[in-house]
Amino acid sequence: MSESKILELCKRRVSCRNYLEKPVPDEIIANCLEAARWAPSACNKQPWRFVIVKDTELRRKICKEGFLPGVPMPWAQKAPVVIALCAKTNPITHGLAPMVSGINYQYIDIGIAGEHFVLAAEEQGLSTCWIGWFKVKYVKKLLKLPSTVKPVCLLTLGYAAEPPSPVKRIPLDELVRENTWKD
Amino acid sequence: MSESKILELCKRRVSCRNYLEKPVPDEIIANCLEAARWAPSACNKQPWRFVIVKDTELRRKICKEGFLPGVPMPWAQKAPVVIALCAKTNPITHGLAPMVSGINYQYIDIGIAGEHFVLAAEEQGLSTCWIGWFKVKYVKKLLKLPSTVKPVCLLTLGYAAEPPSPVKRIPLDELVRENTWKD
Repeated sequence: MSESKILELCKRRVSCRNYLEKPVPDEIIANCLEAARWAPSACNKQPWRFVIVKDTELRRKICKEGFLPGVPMPWAQKAPVVIALCAKTNPITHGLAPMVSGINYQYIDIGIAGEHFVLAAEEQGLSTCWIGWFKVKYVKKLLKLPSTVKPVCLLTLGYAAEPPSPVKRIPLDELVRENTWKD
Repeated sequence: MSESKILELCKRRVSCRNYLEKPVPDEIIANCLEAARWAPSACNKQPWRFVIVKDTELRRKICKEGFLPGVPMPWAQKAPVVIALCAKTNPITHGLAPMVSGINYQYIDIGIAGEHFVLAAEEQGLSTCWIGWFKVKYVKKLLKLPSTVKPVCLLTLGYAAEPPSPVKRIPLDELVRENTWKD
């Protein structure tokens, strides 16, 4: 792999909100899940769990009823696959660490694993969109998740109907400092 | 890029706790930062900020005083670069969203951007280790971070002194369900 391939892929990945109604082959999803499975996590707890929602009625309900008021996402229903990225709650990383540092490392772990999935999808010609701001309790009940499994994010997955438009990024010199902050 | 390159990279990335005292070229770090900069984030807020710590004394202090009692990490001092992955706090994603959903999306975003950095480093022959469980207030003060910038994770970066040992992962059939949970 030449030196710039990851960067190329990170730049090519754009949140996609317009999908073709073309099914996604199971082996592509399996590759994405395998990439996600190898993510690093706090204390190697691997808190991620994945519910792959292909059922039309479940996807309709998530998209019609599962989003927060004021944030309609009719486009999401066209994506042939919705993935519920969930956290298996654990008393150490989910309970003790946030008490000590104020940081819930499970969410960092879910971000890492989810992005492994997303980059693997992108590499295979698929598009995705990370979705937060959904009704956590509604989706948890709809997908019959056990009490220890909490949906954290949704991902849409499918073939882009048109090339998604990239959005701007903050320039590096505003994001990075060396040694200490010094504005 | 052939279909399995991302998967190959995700599997090759293993947390490294033994580094050579060999400096990391600036252009490699710049590539990693550029990959991180293109990460997706809630409302495109791009909450990530990076402090690249190369100074020997600062690294010594982080490794001697910045870790939590009972979690000594003498190995971290050998890494020629320590990155403080920080969150620029924002009232919407950091205040409102956690109130509505109980999920702090900034941490997801930091996980995504940090892993872009990590995969770009891996691709360029470097090794890394994600570190949580450090003294957030101590590191914040040491690196002179402004009040709105909070250190969330540390990353070590350098050349591995020996091939790191991979750790086990939970098999996919325990992690994944289709449509609903159904144990």
